Amino acid sequence: MKRKDGRTAQELRPLTLRMGYVEYAEGSALVELGNTRVLVNVSLAEGVPRHVSGREGWLMAEYNLLPRSTKERKERERQKISGRTAEIQRFLGRAFRAALDLSLLPNKTVVIDADVLQADGGTRVASLLGGYAALHMAMDRLVSRGKIDEWPLTEFAAVSVGWMADDSLLLDLTQVEDENAWADLTVVATRSGDIIELHGAGEGRPVPKATYQAMLELGLAQIPEMVRRVHGQLKNRV
Amino acid sequence: MKRKDGRTAQELRPLTLRMGYVEYAEGSALVELGNTRVLVNVSLAEGVPRHVSGREGWLMAEYNLLPRSTKERKERERQKISGRTAEIQRFLGRAFRAALDLSLLPNKTVVIDADVLQADGGTRVASLLGGYAALHMAMDRLVSRGKIDEWPLTEFAAVSVGWMADDSLLLDLTQVEDENAWADLTVVATRSGDIIELHGAGEGRPVPKATYQAMLELGLAQIPEMVRRVHGQLKNRV
Amino acid sequence: MKRKDGRTAQELRPLTLRMGYVEYAEGSALVELGNTRVLVNVSLAEGVPRHVSGREGWLMAEYNLLPRSTKERKERERQKISGRTAEIQRFLGRAFRAALDLSLLPNKTVVIDADVLQADGGTRVASLLGGYAALHMAMDRLVSRGKIDEWPLTEFAAVSVGWMADDSLLLDLTQVEDENAWADLTVVATRSGDIIELHGAGEGRPVPKATYQAMLELGLAQIPEMVRRVHGQLKNRV
Amino acid sequence: MKRKDGRTAQELRPLTLRMGYVEYAEGSALVELGNTRVLVNVSLAEGVPRHVSGREGWLMAEYNLLPRSTKERKERERQKISGRTAEIQRFLGRAFRAALDLSLLPNKTVVIDADVLQADGGTRVASLLGGYAALHMAMDRLVSRGKIDEWPLTEFAAVSVGWMADDSLLLDLTQVEDENAWADLTVVATRSGDIIELHGAGEGRPVPKATYQAMLELGLAQIPEMVRRVHGQLKNRV
Amino acid sequence: MKRKDGRTAQELRPLTLRMGYVEYAEGSALVELGNTRVLVNVSLAEGVPRHVSGREGWLMAEYNLLPRSTKERKERERQKISGRTAEIQRFLGRAFRAALDLSLLPNKTVVIDADVLQADGGTRVASLLGGYAALHMAMDRLVSRGKIDEWPLTEFAAVSVGWMADDSLLLDLTQVEDENAWADLTVVATRSGDIIELHGAGEGRPVPKATYQAMLELGLAQIPEMVRRVHGQLKNRV
Amino acid sequence: MKRKDGRTAQELRPLTLRMGYVEYAEGSALVELGNTRVLVNVSLAEGVPRHVSGREGWLMAEYNLLPRSTKERKERERQKISGRTAEIQRFLGRAFRAALDLSLLPNKTVVIDADVLQADGGTRVASLLGGYAALHMAMDRLVSRGKIDEWPLTEFAAVSVGWMADDSLLLDLTQVEDENAWADLTVVATRSGDIIELHGAGEGRPVPKATYQAMLELGLAQIPEMVRRVHGQLKNRV
Repeated sequence: MKRKDGRTAQELRPLTLRMGYVEYAEGSALVELGNTRVLVNVSLAEGVPRHVSGREGWLMAEYNLLPRSTKERKERERQKISGRTAEIQRFLGRAFRAALDLSLLPNKTVVIDADVLQADGGTRVASLLGGYAALHMAMDRLVSRGKIDEWPLTEFAAVSVGWMADDSLLLDLTQVEDENAWADLTVVATRSGDIIELHGAGEGRPVPKATYQAMLELGLAQIPEMVRRVHGQLKNRV
Repeated sequence: MKRKDGRTAQELRPLTLRMGYVEYAEGSALVELGNTRVLVNVSLAEGVPRHVSGREGWLMAEYNLLPRSTKERKERERQKISGRTAEIQRFLGRAFRAALDLSLLPNKTVVIDADVLQADGGTRVASLLGGYAALHMAMDRLVSRGKIDEWPLTEFAAVSVGWMADDSLLLDLTQVEDENAWADLTVVATRSGDIIELHGAGEGRPVPKATYQAMLELGLAQIPEMVRRVHGQLKNRV
Repeated sequence: MKRKDGRTAQELRPLTLRMGYVEYAEGSALVELGNTRVLVNVSLAEGVPRHVSGREGWLMAEYNLLPRSTKERKERERQKISGRTAEIQRFLGRAFRAALDLSLLPNKTVVIDADVLQADGGTRVASLLGGYAALHMAMDRLVSRGKIDEWPLTEFAAVSVGWMADDSLLLDLTQVEDENAWADLTVVATRSGDIIELHGAGEGRPVPKATYQAMLELGLAQIPEMVRRVHGQLKNRV
Repeated sequence: MKRKDGRTAQELRPLTLRMGYVEYAEGSALVELGNTRVLVNVSLAEGVPRHVSGREGWLMAEYNLLPRSTKERKERERQKISGRTAEIQRFLGRAFRAALDLSLLPNKTVVIDADVLQADGGTRVASLLGGYAALHMAMDRLVSRGKIDEWPLTEFAAVSVGWMADDSLLLDLTQVEDENAWADLTVVATRSGDIIELHGAGEGRPVPKATYQAMLELGLAQIPEMVRRVHGQLKNRV
Repeated sequence: MKRKDGRTAQELRPLTLRMGYVEYAEGSALVELGNTRVLVNVSLAEGVPRHVSGREGWLMAEYNLLPRSTKERKERERQKISGRTAEIQRFLGRAFRAALDLSLLPNKTVVIDADVLQADGGTRVASLLGGYAALHMAMDRLVSRGKIDEWPLTEFAAVSVGWMADDSLLLDLTQVEDENAWADLTVVATRSGDIIELHGAGEGRPVPKATYQAMLELGLAQIPEMVRRVHGQLKNRV
Repeated sequence: MKRKDGRTAQELRPLTLRMGYVEYAEGSALVELGNTRVLVNVSLAEGVPRHVSGREGWLMAEYNLLPRSTKERKERERQKISGRTAEIQRFLGRAFRAALDLSLLPNKTVVIDADVLQADGGTRVASLLGGYAALHMAMDRLVSRGKIDEWPLTEFAAVSVGWMADDSLLLDLTQVEDENAWADLTVVATRSGDIIELHGAGEGRPVPKATYQAMLELGLAQIPEMVRRVHGQLKNRV
């Protein structure tokens, strides 16, 4: 049975990266995952916050929906950020810190800004893929300038899996599909299959263990393909 | 090999509930999980926020560390809440909404406040166990007053599992153990083993799939025992 | 004529202290004054804020009602604190600074956190009694470690007096009594009868001078007894 | 012994009121108490906040130091108000509510704004005197328009008394004197001597009971004179 | 003498519009003015804020620099917005309100969001051009659906003129040129030459009247060309 | 044709300065421009913010409407400032920085506080005139103490011009006139006629170029007279 956009259940949407979209940033990627568009920029700066100990660098991530990235306009988060934004920022930060060896970047702060221009489902996945690509670009630059000796970034990717209201499983949900899912799981893992993060964002329905296992397997199986796709576009400069 | 507090690897800390600790609340439980102490209160109020549609009630959770619940005093979150607090609040809210059938509570708002008095690891688990117990108390009251016909709360519990720096797995980590773990996983599931939430809070190290599976199995295996323990103390009034 | 809880007009409610309730704090007391419960923790830290001059230490107090300490749930003060909270914090801070000789604690900051778990009237009095006890515990520790030579804490206590709608005076009002008082006065004084603070929180009715004097005398007369009670429980460890 | 500005110990500073200073306000007074200058405006509006019950009107007071009212420039309180400001606002609000019979002003909100242009001690006293005068002006207008039948404002005034470092008592302290006082007391009372508020703002030194009584007597004795002075200038229009 | 990017003094940078870049918005344009890129979205909603009187609609504009739109990363304005942002938002809102006849859009709110992706000078001009185009698109849609009878948008455009440190005048400054200007002027005017806004953002140097007049003439002379350029790309859909 | 207050079209309102109104400030002027009253204080402090480079001093301006300076009471801007306030602060700051040579005040911060006591139109003009006078007073003091060698302040003034609904031009609008203007322009210029700032605050109607030129000429023609008036009152001490 075909999905509304013609995909099969296990088919991913087209992924396009435009590297270096913002020329000021140390790393930059405009990611298009179907109709979802996220601009991810990586900034490198000298120095780390006071609470960071010792020899390591520091990494933090920020996530933001532009007001009209959604069907209804959303207010800018100018007085306080929403719980959803805070949660996604924590999730992104943890994932990137798991993949980047900060001991190789002493006294450096890495900030990853993911700004969603259009949100048609999968903004976390797109932020992770774009962040990986932009980090890759920023690290390449450090290597080529002789600033670091060892490659600090583990290959990883992300994918989402949905448990639909007809008990089927679908990969890479659009916004409309997401609204009709009982649960969805974002799987973040290394190319070799080690798990970086698993985040279930669904509500309202406990997931049978067998279903959960199937979702996890389905997601993990796509990770190597996703890594390949991203790597295939790292030279795709604006 | 024994742990610092004498437990075996798979032994949980003692759990004590003091039900009705705050007499004004519709449901209230002071939870002690080892040295971790969390006061959880349930408030019921008429009416729901505007954005809630139709026939359902609404539930939200708030989480707060008292300033001296931790080894070093933490500033109160009076200007803005931290990312960690926001993330835990989202996590708790989702879990309680998955277990409480809000269609049976039309036009009612349920607020669950978890205030941590002393934080020795496992504050999310304690908040979930105490919240379940306090919700049980509040629902009992509604039933006994004939306000609802059907029991709305699914039996569930939570437990944490740590992957330690020596590659072993431990259940129910203390704060010191948590600081020495490579990763930890909070498992929230129904008595029958359906998964409500899985939340990995560790940083810095991808988890091999086999290890992840072992953590999940270990956690799920404890859920029925945890449910039993909580139920055994629901009459334990202050 | 008896009060609702059986007390005579000049009878205080039972007072219980559980010292060391929070083990991380330098001083800690869980105070129960009738049904009012306040957790007071004392934190000592090195260093003082920039605006503090010269050789003295610094002390500040924070006060907080937990959301369900009251009959109706109150919103957490997460964006700004209420005028009532700010006023009570100022009041507590002044009282503790009057009783603690900060010149004996050079370059130290003392923070006193009073978190109200259940508010049945008298939360300021309970905060003061608990804060005194927790400060005593913290200072004992400094003395036993040879960190200070001279005892820095003056013996003091607090009590509230209400002017009721039948023109009678009552000691130590519960919440319900407080709502039926024309005015109430919190008396904070040293064991020897010197006045630290007098704070009238009533509204709406000027108090005849003779009544005011009677309230003051009544309150001052209880201070030595209150000091005795607190001292009698300083060894009452959790 | 003379004071720096030539006054005797019990001499008040000159008091000048310029009524109607701001022509838009329902009541307005620019108060000069020595070098202290406070602009107090009264606003009347229809309607009361939701939390106000039944038949009464509502009154609130706001207090603000202009940035250069003090020797050193103070930051505007644009993100949050200080504890001191919050405390004074509560104090002023309570005092005005005690003197104004809000049951005669059903469904009306009264706001009293006290903005300190120059602060040379006694800003609370000046705010109270100016607020009384501005309220008088606003009530006069209501009476003359037949909007209220009964006079709602009780005659009252305020004065401050200082306990100086040489154990003497002084009335109406300037800023420099205030900095050299062990304690000071603001007495707010009706012309007939009933007490509206007593507020001690000193820190660091308990006050012997006999001293406290002498301060109170000294302050109360000045109230009728203060009421006379204010009334003598109510026609003193700009 | 040529400029760094090869332009003559009075040459504008290339302008590209990609209409409908965000498909959810009623009007949307991604503007590229040289290296400056701004995404402008127009949202239409039913209803107007309470303070808007009578028969008119309402329009407001928001402006935002993405964190890495600039050479150095800028913090997101999450707690408060900067004076610069507030000023630009006011400027944009006034200009759009002058050009859109809100009496033809009764009970409608128009929000224009300008998010700067890359800031190489002229972000206000780009926001105005993109906002005009996106408004055009949104109004076209209303007309084609028969929702409005009369065309509500006056043709206008904007251009910036710089007074350089060598006393020359340049059109359409890049960021580097802007930093070397003594003053710059943003001219917003209708196709027929009526002035909507003139905004000088330079600092530090009064501008001789004759120079000011020359800047104004130079800017006004470009407006018709700018209007033509924008209109030429209104069909340039993504 | 006469205006409501009897002035001719090109007649300015009476201007009165009371220099040194606040004695603590380095410079202070209470400005009365007709019924508009603004208190402007200049503060000088050592040190500059971190972002200020090199040898220059720093200047910033703050603007504030007191709550009852307007016909309807306005809320204090305690949580965030309005767009209007932010825009006026930017405008004032730029104007003063253009007139004060900060290279002659190395490592000094100048803060100009304009607090509007009564707002009957022209508050920006009054803030500029009062700020000039207060700066003059503060600079005089520096010169007389030998702290600076060279006079740093360029003579300038400001005036507003309105384009009225009958197509006439009026100088120096009152609040009521302002509400009936199609547009108004604030002209800030040096005595010799160089332009410091031009700010049009009107909305809703593009201004024909010839009208704009006439407004500009009319305003510029008044500047020397305005400078004379202000200088004539610089000795007018309180």
